[in-house]
Amino acid sequence: MSRIGIIAGTGGLPLALAQALPDAHVVAFEGASVAVPEDRLDRHRIEKLGGVFDALRAAGVSRVVMAGAMSRPALDPSALDPVMMALAPRILMAMQGGDDALLRLVITVFEEQGFAVVGAHELLPDLTAGDGLLAGPAPSDRARADIARGRDILAAIGPMDVGQGCVVAEGLCLGVETLQGTDAMLRFVGETPGSLRGTRRGVLVKRPKPGQDLRVDMPAIGPATVEAAAAAGLDGIAIQSGAVLLIDRAELLSMVEARGLFLLAEPA
Amino acid sequence: MSRIGIIAGTGGLPLALAQALPDAHVVAFEGASVAVPEDRLDRHRIEKLGGVFDALRAAGVSRVVMAGAMSRPALDPSALDPVMMALAPRILMAMQGGDDALLRLVITVFEEQGFAVVGAHELLPDLTAGDGLLAGPAPSDRARADIARGRDILAAIGPMDVGQGCVVAEGLCLGVETLQGTDAMLRFVGETPGSLRGTRRGVLVKRPKPGQDLRVDMPAIGPATVEAAAAAGLDGIAIQSGAVLLIDRAELLSMVEARGLFLLAEPA
Repeated sequence: MSRIGIIAGTGGLPLALAQALPDAHVVAFEGASVAVPEDRLDRHRIEKLGGVFDALRAAGVSRVVMAGAMSRPALDPSALDPVMMALAPRILMAMQGGDDALLRLVITVFEEQGFAVVGAHELLPDLTAGDGLLAGPAPSDRARADIARGRDILAAIGPMDVGQGCVVAEGLCLGVETLQGTDAMLRFVGETPGSLRGTRRGVLVKRPKPGQDLRVDMPAIGPATVEAAAAAGLDGIAIQSGAVLLIDRAELLSMVEARGLFLLAEPA
Repeated sequence: MSRIGIIAGTGGLPLALAQALPDAHVVAFEGASVAVPEDRLDRHRIEKLGGVFDALRAAGVSRVVMAGAMSRPALDPSALDPVMMALAPRILMAMQGGDDALLRLVITVFEEQGFAVVGAHELLPDLTAGDGLLAGPAPSDRARADIARGRDILAAIGPMDVGQGCVVAEGLCLGVETLQGTDAMLRFVGETPGSLRGTRRGVLVKRPKPGQDLRVDMPAIGPATVEAAAAAGLDGIAIQSGAVLLIDRAELLSMVEARGLFLLAEPA
């Protein structure tokens, strides 16, 4: 059985994977803040991507998983290795688009180098949710209507590669996730003036874009998401079953209960 | 020639209309913060909408214009007059949707009462912009690409009745306007962490939703919008010609120049 390579970014997922896969070879880029203990990390400069491929091959890796968020690199052009020099035009092109374009390129490049790219949810199915109410009280009819509207909004904006989340409160859209991520959107929602929001609570809807490749940039929620949703005055969180990562699952679910929210998973 | 009735909400537009149309009868709801001098206002309780129709008819008004933002009313059910009692089911239904649903209902109700509803831009064509560069330096190719992407994003989310503006910076979407309005979105954009935004500047794109009825909720920009766009580190603002209100036009244009931004108007 071949070794797994983990390309680790920020957030809780790389650590969860590294702990569940003790034999995996974990790569991180220099300067990235990664929760995996440093002695498990094989650090490389982003400019020396050829060295990453060599190191993975030398470690016997044939399948890789991208885990966690990676900020867009500020490349030092004078430090590019030949592999990155050859890739530069395609990277520049992809960086003009949204995150999807760049991540699709990353997958393509790993595949061109002979690696199979797999999703974290394929390696650890327990990372995602089955259908149904995972924690908290059953959503009200009002909340269910807000979830449906949130799904419609995400489906409409999905092809634009903007974000994977939104907040709807009694029919009103209070936030659409953009580059800054879910927690920033929830802070923004929490700052909505009372003169606009009234007593409306609302729901966070979080799902992949339609047709999104779940091997990269899979949506994720964790305990911090629940805290932020509660602080924003929401009633609950609705995700897509099998397609949203649950970070620190046990803590996440007990946080949902403790904050009196609901967490609902529905199929695509 | 028939008198014009102005239904005045917040913002600069009601005052601009009231000044340009000195013969107009100006109605405002109790509790609304309206910039028109109080002695020009005929105040009514929102629960007594029948009284508004009576007052407009008594004043010889046959055409009305909705001007400025109105927050969703917190109705006192015990105070509803017969007209509002009869409308209550339709109002409740419309309040489940976005702003568009409620505003379409308002137009329908005024029309059912025998009033013609006209747009502010029809009464005062100078309130909107013609095609072209209105102020500031010509946008770069990069800014023009961001404007095109912003238009695509607004077109995609338009049918969802979410908002009329977004910010794009070098292909990345930094904000999508929701209930809180353009200025709140621009503050949010300005708070984007440098680790995510880098040196990207970006553009504010502001346009009506495709197919939007411009007689209500017409998008607007004013000097405060320009200030907020500059504070958010943007390069400029792109609007739709003939379809976005320019509040305090002279001050707005000189503010664009003073802040080094561009203001571009393009057709639909």
